[in-house]
This record gives sequence, C-alpha cells and structure tokens, in this order.
Amino acid sequence: MTGGENCLAGIRVLDLSQFEAGPSCTEALAWLGAEVVKLENPRAGDPGRAATLGGIEGSDSFYFLILNANKKSVTVNLKSPRGVALVKDLAARADVFIENFAPGAIERLGLGYDAVRAVNPGIIYAQVKGFGEGSPYADNLAFDMIAQATGGIMSVTGERGGPPAKPGPTLGDTGTGMLLAISILGALYRRRDTGEGQHLQVAMQDAMLHYMRIAFATQARNGYGPVQRAGAASVSGSNAPCGIYPCAPGGPNDYVYVYTSRTNPEHWRRLLGVIGREDLIGDPRYETGLARSQHEAEVDALIAEWTRGRDKREAMRLIGAAGVPAGAVLDTKELQDDPSLEERRIMQVMQHPRAGAFKMPGWPVRHDGATPRVAPAPLLGEHNAEVLTSWLSLAPGDVQELREAGVI
Amino acid sequence: MTGGENCLAGIRVLDLSQFEAGPSCTEALAWLGAEVVKLENPRAGDPGRAATLGGIEGSDSFYFLILNANKKSVTVNLKSPRGVALVKDLAARADVFIENFAPGAIERLGLGYDAVRAVNPGIIYAQVKGFGEGSPYADNLAFDMIAQATGGIMSVTGERGGPPAKPGPTLGDTGTGMLLAISILGALYRRRDTGEGQHLQVAMQDAMLHYMRIAFATQARNGYGPVQRAGAASVSGSNAPCGIYPCAPGGPNDYVYVYTSRTNPEHWRRLLGVIGREDLIGDPRYETGLARSQHEAEVDALIAEWTRGRDKREAMRLIGAAGVPAGAVLDTKELQDDPSLEERRIMQVMQHPRAGAFKMPGWPVRHDGATPRVAPAPLLGEHNAEVLTSWLSLAPGDVQELREAGVI
Repeated sequence: MTGGENCLAGIRVLDLSQFEAGPSCTEALAWLGAEVVKLENPRAGDPGRAATLGGIEGSDSFYFLILNANKKSVTVNLKSPRGVALVKDLAARADVFIENFAPGAIERLGLGYDAVRAVNPGIIYAQVKGFGEGSPYADNLAFDMIAQATGGIMSVTGERGGPPAKPGPTLGDTGTGMLLAISILGALYRRRDTGEGQHLQVAMQDAMLHYMRIAFATQARNGYGPVQRAGAASVSGSNAPCGIYPCAPGGPNDYVYVYTSRTNPEHWRRLLGVIGREDLIGDPRYETGLARSQHEAEVDALIAEWTRGRDKREAMRLIGAAGVPAGAVLDTKELQDDPSLEERRIMQVMQHPRAGAFKMPGWPVRHDGATPRVAPAPLLGEHNAEVLTSWLSLAPGDVQELREAGVI
Repeated sequence: MTGGENCLAGIRVLDLSQFEAGPSCTEALAWLGAEVVKLENPRAGDPGRAATLGGIEGSDSFYFLILNANKKSVTVNLKSPRGVALVKDLAARADVFIENFAPGAIERLGLGYDAVRAVNPGIIYAQVKGFGEGSPYADNLAFDMIAQATGGIMSVTGERGGPPAKPGPTLGDTGTGMLLAISILGALYRRRDTGEGQHLQVAMQDAMLHYMRIAFATQARNGYGPVQRAGAASVSGSNAPCGIYPCAPGGPNDYVYVYTSRTNPEHWRRLLGVIGREDLIGDPRYETGLARSQHEAEVDALIAEWTRGRDKREAMRLIGAAGVPAGAVLDTKELQDDPSLEERRIMQVMQHPRAGAFKMPGWPVRHDGATPRVAPAPLLGEHNAEVLTSWLSLAPGDVQELREAGVI
C-alpha cells in the first residue's frame, strides 16, 4: 500500500501562497509527493500561523497545521533585493510557482510571470485571484465569503422564501484551490512532452460557478428566471419527502436526511413500510410525487413522527436497509471520534513538534487501498538550510551569511 | 492562447460513470484535452440524459449537457457477454477507467479492478463510492445530500441555534469528483516513469471532510466540542459586522455581504466612513471586535440602515473602494447575463445539435490567458464507429455487425 505519496516525486513547488485557497492547492500536491516549499517572511510567516486563529501555546495555529501538512518552510525577506534574487534562484529550479497575494502585489515585488519566466521558461506559474483579470471587480479584495456571495453560492443556499445564506464549508477557498490543482497537474503532464511552462490563473468568484452547475441547468429548464432557494431539497427539485428530519434525543445535530427519488416510486412505498404505515400505500393523497408535493406538510409530519422516536444512526440504518437513501447528520465531534474514519486513514494523527499529536482529515482518496501519510506542517524556516543547500548547492557558510544579512 | 486544451492530449479515459460525481471528474479531464469516452447502455444511456431532468424537446437534459461537454459516447450492452468483452478490449487500450455504480455492481459485471488489470496492468482504475470500503455504511446508497449529511457539511451550515441546513451547491458530487481528478492526474504523472497502474477510490462521505477542515481546526481550538453553526459568519468566528445585509429594491437576492477582518481594525473605521457615521469612530460600544460582538444587533442595524438604501452592486462598489471586503449576492440569472464572465470565457456557449445554443459555465482556470473551449456533449452512441475503429481497429463492417447483434 503506497498511498500515492510517490505520484509527484521529484516535482518542486515554490509556494508563496498564504491562508487557505493557495495552501489547500499545494497541500494536495504535497500529499501526492511533490516537494512543496513555502516561502515565508522571516518575521511571522504565513499569517495563517497566527496564534489568534487558535492553537496550542507556543505552536502554530490548528488552521495552519491542517492546511500545510507535508510541506517545507524557507524564510525569505521579500523587501530586500537579495531576498528577491534568492527567490528567482529558487524559481529557476522549481517546476511550479504559486502565489495568492492581493492584486498587483507579486508584480510590485518583481516576481510577476514575466520576471519568473525570464529565469525559467518551463515554469508553471499559478495565481489565485479574488476576481478575474478583466472583471470590473479585479482590484477588489476577496475572502472566502465574498467569493461565495458574488459567485452565486449564497443565492441558492437557504430556506424557501427566506434570505440568502452562507454554507459552512469554505468552498470559496478550498473549492478554488482544488480546481487550480487540477490545472497545475494538467500543465505538468503536458510539460513532460513539450518542456513549455504555462501561466495559470483562477479567480475565486469564477470557481464558484463550477460547484453550482446544477443550478444553471435548472435555470435553463425554468426559462431563465433566477434559481430559487430550496432549503433542504435539491435546487433542481425533489419529491416529498426529502429533507432533514428531527431524531431522538433532540440535540442540535440529531437529525436524519431522507431522500426519495423522483425516478424511483418504490422509495416512498418502502419508506411507508419502515415507518409502519403500510396502510397508506396506494392512498391517493400520497401515491404520486405530485400528490405528495401537494401534501408536503402532512408527508413531513408522518416521517418526523417516526424519526423523532429514533436515534439518527438507527434511523439511517433502518431506512437505508429498506433501500431508501438516508444519512444521519454527523457533526465534527462525531466524525473526529469515528473509528472507521481513523482505520481507513481518512482522519490521521499529525505528530507536530510543538502542538503534539493532532488528529485531522488527510487526503481522502485511497491509492491502492491507502491514503497518503500525513507528515507535520513545517516550523517557520525549518528547512532553510536543507532547501538552500539542495536546490541551490549553497554551502552551510553561505546560508549562515544570508541569515546574518537578514535575507532569510 | 491555448486554453489548456492540449494538456492531456493522448490520454484515453474509459468512463462508465453517470449522473454527477464521476462525470464532473471526467469532464475536467476532457476540458484539459483527454479523450473521454462515455460507455453507455444502448437503450437510454446515462440516466442523467433523461428528459425528466429538463431540457429542450427531443434533446438530452441541460443537466447532462453541463456535465458532459467535450466527451464522446459509445454504447455497449453490459448484459451481453460480447459487450463485456468489448469493454475489456477498450480497457486494454485506455489509460484511465472510471465508474460510480452502486456498491458491488462493477464486480458483478465482471469488470472489477482485478479483471481490468488482467488485461491492462498499467490502468488507472478509479471508483467513486458513497461510503468507503470498510465503513459500516459501505453497502448504503448515497446521493449528494446523503454525503453532505454524513460528511459533516450540514452540521456546520445554518443559522446560529437553528437546525442543520443543506448548502445549495452539489458539493457531495462535484466536490468529490474534483478530488478524484487530482488523484487520477497524480497517478498518470507517476505512470510515465513506472508504467504502473493504480487503484483509486474516493468515498463521497470522506471527501466532504476536506471542504470543512476549518471547522475541524475550530473544533480543536474549542476543546473538541462539536462546531456550532454560525449563520453568515465563518465557523471559525468572525468580528461583527460580518453578514448578509439587505439592499434596495428588496428583491430575493438584493443583499450584500460585508466582512470586517479580526486582524485589521481599520476595516471597521473605514466602514463607518462609507456609511457616513464617522461620529462613531472611537465610540467604546463599537471600537473593538469584542465590543462590537457584544452590540452585534446595533452594529448590524447601523450597516443595514445604509445598505437598504443602495443597490447591492453600488454597495459593493462603495464599500470595496474603501478597502473593506464586500460582495453583492449575485444570482444565477445575473451570472448568466454577466458580460465579463462571457468575455473572459468563464461562461461559454455550447452549440448542441439538438438543444441549440446553450450558455453554461466552463472550466474556470485560465491557461495562458484563456479557458478551455466548450465542445458539445455527445449524443448517445455518437462515437461508436469513430472510437471502435480508432481504438480497436475494427472495420466498418465489424461495427455494423456489433450493432445488429445488439452488442452496442
């Protein structure tokens, strides 16, 4: 069981990105075996390290650990000309260069695409933007939630007839990072034949459309009026019953999702069997999807009456065993403690020199039966000597001189 | 401007997947230039083609078009032994094999990993599961919303103190497909050196954890109690003001998201300037993030009083120009009609032989300034002759015989 850690062996990624969108992208590459070197400012590094984000005293934040596993860290003072020259030297030996600074910042540093390509024509130069170049908002700052607002995500999230709402996941950041990782890997594959680099850019606003394409299909079907929010149902429309039903003992996450497909009328009949209401099979009030939609409140009450008396996992098991799709609403604590997720290496324990043992989600795709092994996120500048000597063949004395001169 | 269409030139993908999770994965590969051949049953093909999902009369559904651009289609009857033999012949010449049938189905067809590897040791064999092999739910059916329930997404989505909620985007499907695409590309890269195939599996439940890792970081910080829902704020905590504020003229999506960072106290002062309340700069009720959180309802009322009088785009422009992150809540219709998205080729028009011109989101990453070109989704069996002759060197008469025998 290799776990895929060798897929990208030999690939060097020079990573100037920070916070989440860029780091989530490069962490995926690191898990698959690329040598990812974070370039950070010597003072405090990636702002995602900040203790204000929460962590063990004297360590980097959990936020940082979770987004920077399996990477290396080198410090460089980008305000010094020697620092910028050092980055160029490293870029000349890298396969991928990535950054997600505010608009225009990388060019002001003298590290824009043209400058880096001049020292390495084969570089894959990747940028995360908030808004695309050429967009009327190109100069605006963006954060995860700004992308979710302007990219349509909030407009399709929320209760029917209610205001727009924000999903909990950071789709604006990690969702964007994943799309960029795919393009980087495509460009790397291409380069093996051509030797040519590419300039890649993804805007967080634009990336959001990719995750709600079903809403665009629905809009086309509905004559191009904006798609409306559908609560727990699919934006493309769902049969009743379809929703999040309350379970015992009534805690904040004691719910079960139950789905009956429009394309399988058996789901409803099976569900009536599970809840002991076979007497309603054939009842015209509920027999068709259309009829159930017209009696949705009654249908939901029938299901909830049964679910309220069951633990959510029991409800999931009984409904699922009858061949009806059902899923318990599991919370972060239940997932954190789930033995199966740990046995299958979806959750892994990072052994960090300062934070100690930290259990976190790793890369979830299994390669030949195993997921990649989680290694610690780097301490700030931990790999200065290692990377500068191996990439640039500097002598230990050279590294010491760079340190004393305030370059690294 | 190449748009990245040549990245994966020469890669052959044999795609037995249907609906969204698998097709979103292979469509990303197709956009980057892989030859993706959908293998479909001759009767009706991918169930995602169904007219009940909504489309132009006599055409495939918009749902299908949006998820299957740039692919080819070959029909094969998997219930006939000759059909299964034909799939093996194709698999012997493919680089990637992918499926997302219900648990156990592909093995029952005689096309499990061992069977395919026997004819092609270098195959990248990729599977989308609902729940992981070894999970207590491994035999359960899964749909997008079941993954979002059991993978924690719903537990962190919704209003504070309210019930769990479902995000509108299909993170369970497309979110999973993107992670599998990354692993497939990693495995392909590796294979160029080793010639070795890999067996990849991703479970939709497991994939969800990847998109809510900030919630796991927050949980670790909070002493491992389950993360609570935070409405429009970040699950990791946000300063007031941070939320979705109503705008003129009061339509369902007339809102603007406003974010003030905890790490930048200037955001609040700048915002007071925008709304004409400089008189409140320095007011102890609002001066610190903590103070504003304690007066959150008043703070929100101050902002909303100003936003209610502005169009959402004007509000975004004015607040953004002051250096405070802000984003209008744009809906599907506004994005569909946005000139910048079309000029930048984020939205593209597919010219489909039956549906006509269909404008849809394409791959959002720009390669050397352009995104890949959207080509039509295939008609059912459109490429039977082309693929069978080019992959298997069959003669036109052989193809005709297969058709008459009900194999394709």
